[in-house]
Amino acid sequence: MEQKLKFGIIGGGAGSFIADLHRRGALFDGLSTLSAGCFSRDYQKTLSAGKEWGITDTDRLYGTYEEMAQAEGRREDGIDFVIIAAPNDTHYPCARSFLKNGIHVVCDKPLTHTSEQAKELKRLAEEQDLLFAVTYVYSAYPAVRRMRALVQEGVLGKLLTVDVRYVHGYLMSQKKNPHNDAWRFDKSRSGIAYCTADIGTHAEQIISYITGERLDSLCARLEALSTLTELDTNMHALLRYENGMSGMMWCSLIALGHACDLSLGIYGEEAGVEWNRQDAEHFTLCYPDGSRSVYSAQNKPDRDSRDISHCRYPAGHPESVCESFANIYYDFQQALLAKKAGRPYPCRYPDIHDGIRGVQFIEACVKSSALQAWVRV
Amino acid sequence: MEQKLKFGIIGGGAGSFIADLHRRGALFDGLSTLSAGCFSRDYQKTLSAGKEWGITDTDRLYGTYEEMAQAEGRREDGIDFVIIAAPNDTHYPCARSFLKNGIHVVCDKPLTHTSEQAKELKRLAEEQDLLFAVTYVYSAYPAVRRMRALVQEGVLGKLLTVDVRYVHGYLMSQKKNPHNDAWRFDKSRSGIAYCTADIGTHAEQIISYITGERLDSLCARLEALSTLTELDTNMHALLRYENGMSGMMWCSLIALGHACDLSLGIYGEEAGVEWNRQDAEHFTLCYPDGSRSVYSAQNKPDRDSRDISHCRYPAGHPESVCESFANIYYDFQQALLAKKAGRPYPCRYPDIHDGIRGVQFIEACVKSSALQAWVRV
Amino acid sequence: MEQKLKFGIIGGGAGSFIADLHRRGALFDGLSTLSAGCFSRDYQKTLSAGKEWGITDTDRLYGTYEEMAQAEGRREDGIDFVIIAAPNDTHYPCARSFLKNGIHVVCDKPLTHTSEQAKELKRLAEEQDLLFAVTYVYSAYPAVRRMRALVQEGVLGKLLTVDVRYVHGYLMSQKKNPHNDAWRFDKSRSGIAYCTADIGTHAEQIISYITGERLDSLCARLEALSTLTELDTNMHALLRYENGMSGMMWCSLIALGHACDLSLGIYGEEAGVEWNRQDAEHFTLCYPDGSRSVYSAQNKPDRDSRDISHCRYPAGHPESVCESFANIYYDFQQALLAKKAGRPYPCRYPDIHDGIRGVQFIEACVKSSALQAWVRV
Amino acid sequence: MEQKLKFGIIGGGAGSFIADLHRRGALFDGLSTLSAGCFSRDYQKTLSAGKEWGITDTDRLYGTYEEMAQAEGRREDGIDFVIIAAPNDTHYPCARSFLKNGIHVVCDKPLTHTSEQAKELKRLAEEQDLLFAVTYVYSAYPAVRRMRALVQEGVLGKLLTVDVRYVHGYLMSQKKNPHNDAWRFDKSRSGIAYCTADIGTHAEQIISYITGERLDSLCARLEALSTLTELDTNMHALLRYENGMSGMMWCSLIALGHACDLSLGIYGEEAGVEWNRQDAEHFTLCYPDGSRSVYSAQNKPDRDSRDISHCRYPAGHPESVCESFANIYYDFQQALLAKKAGRPYPCRYPDIHDGIRGVQFIEACVKSSALQAWVRV
Repeated sequence: MEQKLKFGIIGGGAGSFIADLHRRGALFDGLSTLSAGCFSRDYQKTLSAGKEWGITDTDRLYGTYEEMAQAEGRREDGIDFVIIAAPNDTHYPCARSFLKNGIHVVCDKPLTHTSEQAKELKRLAEEQDLLFAVTYVYSAYPAVRRMRALVQEGVLGKLLTVDVRYVHGYLMSQKKNPHNDAWRFDKSRSGIAYCTADIGTHAEQIISYITGERLDSLCARLEALSTLTELDTNMHALLRYENGMSGMMWCSLIALGHACDLSLGIYGEEAGVEWNRQDAEHFTLCYPDGSRSVYSAQNKPDRDSRDISHCRYPAGHPESVCESFANIYYDFQQALLAKKAGRPYPCRYPDIHDGIRGVQFIEACVKSSALQAWVRV
Repeated sequence: MEQKLKFGIIGGGAGSFIADLHRRGALFDGLSTLSAGCFSRDYQKTLSAGKEWGITDTDRLYGTYEEMAQAEGRREDGIDFVIIAAPNDTHYPCARSFLKNGIHVVCDKPLTHTSEQAKELKRLAEEQDLLFAVTYVYSAYPAVRRMRALVQEGVLGKLLTVDVRYVHGYLMSQKKNPHNDAWRFDKSRSGIAYCTADIGTHAEQIISYITGERLDSLCARLEALSTLTELDTNMHALLRYENGMSGMMWCSLIALGHACDLSLGIYGEEAGVEWNRQDAEHFTLCYPDGSRSVYSAQNKPDRDSRDISHCRYPAGHPESVCESFANIYYDFQQALLAKKAGRPYPCRYPDIHDGIRGVQFIEACVKSSALQAWVRV
Repeated sequence: MEQKLKFGIIGGGAGSFIADLHRRGALFDGLSTLSAGCFSRDYQKTLSAGKEWGITDTDRLYGTYEEMAQAEGRREDGIDFVIIAAPNDTHYPCARSFLKNGIHVVCDKPLTHTSEQAKELKRLAEEQDLLFAVTYVYSAYPAVRRMRALVQEGVLGKLLTVDVRYVHGYLMSQKKNPHNDAWRFDKSRSGIAYCTADIGTHAEQIISYITGERLDSLCARLEALSTLTELDTNMHALLRYENGMSGMMWCSLIALGHACDLSLGIYGEEAGVEWNRQDAEHFTLCYPDGSRSVYSAQNKPDRDSRDISHCRYPAGHPESVCESFANIYYDFQQALLAKKAGRPYPCRYPDIHDGIRGVQFIEACVKSSALQAWVRV
Repeated sequence: MEQKLKFGIIGGGAGSFIADLHRRGALFDGLSTLSAGCFSRDYQKTLSAGKEWGITDTDRLYGTYEEMAQAEGRREDGIDFVIIAAPNDTHYPCARSFLKNGIHVVCDKPLTHTSEQAKELKRLAEEQDLLFAVTYVYSAYPAVRRMRALVQEGVLGKLLTVDVRYVHGYLMSQKKNPHNDAWRFDKSRSGIAYCTADIGTHAEQIISYITGERLDSLCARLEALSTLTELDTNMHALLRYENGMSGMMWCSLIALGHACDLSLGIYGEEAGVEWNRQDAEHFTLCYPDGSRSVYSAQNKPDRDSRDISHCRYPAGHPESVCESFANIYYDFQQALLAKKAGRPYPCRYPDIHDGIRGVQFIEACVKSSALQAWVRV
């Protein structure tokens, strides 16, 4: 067995659901250990989270990300990679700081506030020869990987149209925000969009991931329908891809009765494929004779051999979002181990190109909505 | 019991599925008899259909609609109303002819090729004091009527956004058209749109029916994705209603795996409501606590008393499209009986205003798609 | 076109939902006319129902079934067949009377109170060379006919086990009986069982119909769980078929949240097939690779040619219980027309053998439950 | 933070899916560390699994469970509890050995081959004052805990009948056994039953857990339908509970198209509740008005405060079997920490009483099937 990787985390001190999922995902396959962190702006919270998460060396619990990036960059036994799972406005300065100190980065989405920032991070990562993952977690579900393989193999024939939606009702369902994330309502921290940035980017990325196609242009309408924020809480968009494929997107935080309801359909000349994350294990193939066949991603191939779909359990045991984070971290860490060993490595995780596209998508949506017109992405 | 009404039919001679449904719907509640018809351009077909459908007096089987309109208009025992269930291009001349001869009209949708024609029919009907129904059949499902009542009672609170889709795959699934309706592929007969006119109008009407709201503007994209026709076979649209409510629509004839898949969601500040015609008996209310409650339209009220929802069977016996046609015809015929008896009558059926709105919707979609821009409806 | 058949009805005067469905079913395909009836024990109700249903000759509206059987049997233009859609206790005497007067019979289920009575009816029908249908309506859904064809073709391989359930909650959901059928609570009218007889027989018949297999033995438990009646309102049974196939059955009137919820699964060595009447159009085939394929019975074959599945509408338009009744009546009437014309005719409708088996099934369940033991059917 | 607990594992060396889930579950909440193990009969496999799982002290990797029980029992820093996740025949001797050496036990189900053995383990645990959990994992899903709370609060009223099924097709779907568990086909290792023991016990336990009711008697039929084993691969049972509640159970390994399909319905006089593990997050309440309301177990209460339902993620993120194992281990470890600290502790995990009942259930099923009769449990 190879030496384990070491990593640190930015964020998580305030009991963040997401930062803990990152931590579990990174640790899931036993390839790494959590060695450092700056979990909060409040150093006491960093200390207590560090204790809970088993970092015994308090020298490696830092007051600021900058301090952490510099110190870890200098240490002989410094972290191999950092996970940035703090509010959106931290992504750019944190990532830049760690890249400059020679540390590989895994960052949550949306990558940055502006596409200029995102492209600067790409330049930095390339200059420093560093890996950069962006955690579009839904594209790591086994069924999604299986659908991608089917589309790439041509099973659907020429792609005609896509339908994607990611719908929540939680913002309308409660007077108080249930997720401890008031920062999301604040434009200076969230960025130029909320719903579009937070979940719209997932919708954009999962279609690009499965089809391999890139957006050419779109016509979006963003609406601020919650009294909690001036930012968009509902968005609709018509889509046009470079290959001519059309599409429609709906993302919402105000559709009562829905929770994390991400669903998609991709229709080609020879078959269609559909998936709904609420039944994440299964996907449906639609055939020209009108029949619909439901497959379990976990049915085949053998779970004992790691394959493209990263199935971990037998059919009938749907995997949770935790295992999906683990899939991204598995691929990222395997690539990093290979790189350190001088072996070639495939990039099977969503990377900085996905991150840049996501920010460009947000910018195009905001612009289209303001102009009430189709715009190029 | 009052004297039965008499009606005639235009169309159906070629084994049309739809014309036969109209006939069954009109006869379902025993309020009328089929007394005349011009079922085909081929008089032999009219004769044989007339025989099958029990018209013993061959004088009342006509070679042309014009002949029928004039003869029936002159007869002492002439038909009370005509059903126009022939291809789209016949709707306007037929309806005009029967109106001019003093005969009430039930016409299939889309009402006419142009909104000018539709408005002319409205003027004619008003001048002649004649009833005019347009058979938007989906709005007559008991569950849809129940949802309308809930929305009108304010159960949903302020309406925020709607989602409606009507998706077929049949045009892509077969090389030959399965529905004996090659005329639909011909612009001169179908009109300026195919998918948008044939099923998009249903989607527009059902939302207007339930919410009582009217479209203000839209941004549509129509695509001709079938080799069978130059007309649109797939359409997407962003919607904006006069009350500020937003919406999204997808209608398609090329989405494999779908058949008559009409579904809708209407989301307000206090509740949401959803319906899918494939499980037409039930509708779902979405509440702020995140729960979703499924109700049967047939559960209450008592089926023995005719009420707004027109339930005919006990819960668990979903009604077919046949009973929905019957619901429209029941309301139309009750209104006609009342009118003839000098009693006041409510207009509970979709009428010429729905018909005009449908044609305006088609025109707006075609214009928006050509301009690639938002347009007023 | 052949001369239309003439039929009469016993029952329906009190606004019976079922009798009206029989009437609609018999008339659906235009093969017959309603010519006579004894719709109620109250002659005034018979008169008013007769008027509503268009029987102009009041000589043919009768005060008793006996009177009707004799008069119609004597008339030159007497009815060809009678529909018995009155409470269970009328089935045997009515059917006997019409058979003795040379009139073909369609009777609702359960056929009689005792299997001796049922067998006597069979003897009478054979002696008189008369057709006898029993309206097990669920076996006439297109999807059920399609499943039967698949099983008979061997697609499932050797049959291993079946699961069938027919579950209602209506008896528990209301203090008063919603269906105007208080007679069902009365043992002298309903027979030795209620739930088992009313819906258990449907469950027994549909499995026998699809698989072609007959029950060998069963172990049942009947429970009287409603204060409205001493009869069973819930039943469970373990099943053993003559071919060794095992099975399980649950029928209930007290399972809240369910309405007409008839579902079944049949599992063989090579495939399984499943159906739920709430989505009656579709059925599912289960394959050894774990996939599940959903087919529409209405997808193929062409609806223009009548075939085994009797599809009437295009895919996506599920048929209601009304069309299923029509399917039974279509087959029965075609057989009767053929018989009258001296042509050979297949028996494609559920007949007196299904009726006898149903009564034997009820008797076996009651006996098994009393003995708390397995019994032979 | 209290000192972490230390535990060891029996089993898992051969790549067992289940043993790894136990390990993850025990570690999930950071309350313990894996300190010892005997992962295989092959010591080399134990060594390599130990290395993979981070046990650096090879003294604590043992050749036999007996050796491990004695050595760990003697060590000052010996394990607090052992997890037994090896084939069924090891449960009894292993558990006895660890109990005798003063070590708390978590054991997979079915607990033992005979109820005498199970009762002996109970006596031993009581004599030694040791905790004993049996990992009936399905009862630890948040939705199941929520349903239990509802039933205990009386929301369903008097309980009338239950329906439970746990259905797989995997044994029929492949010629070779896909799960590396050929030992299951061997009566000497599996015990007197296979399907009934492996999954039937889950079905028995989950109903007992939710309702608090105990089986009084049952009538079962076990069938050996696979060529791979002489043991039962399909079972049906009629159930009678001590409170008079009736029920029906179906468990199968040969029903094609199903995978881990555990579903249940519990029907009372005032409401019903239903759950299907394939959509584990949600449960349905069925009301007397016929409506069905779907709730997310994760919706409330606040995930920040651990409560009875142990929700870990926000609504819309269904938890996997991994989090359910973690729930059992959380409760077990909290009880153990409390016990060690001299604090009172509730038993919120399935314990040896569940284990004994499971074995008694198996024995009753086998006996009933052999006698073809109802038997007392």
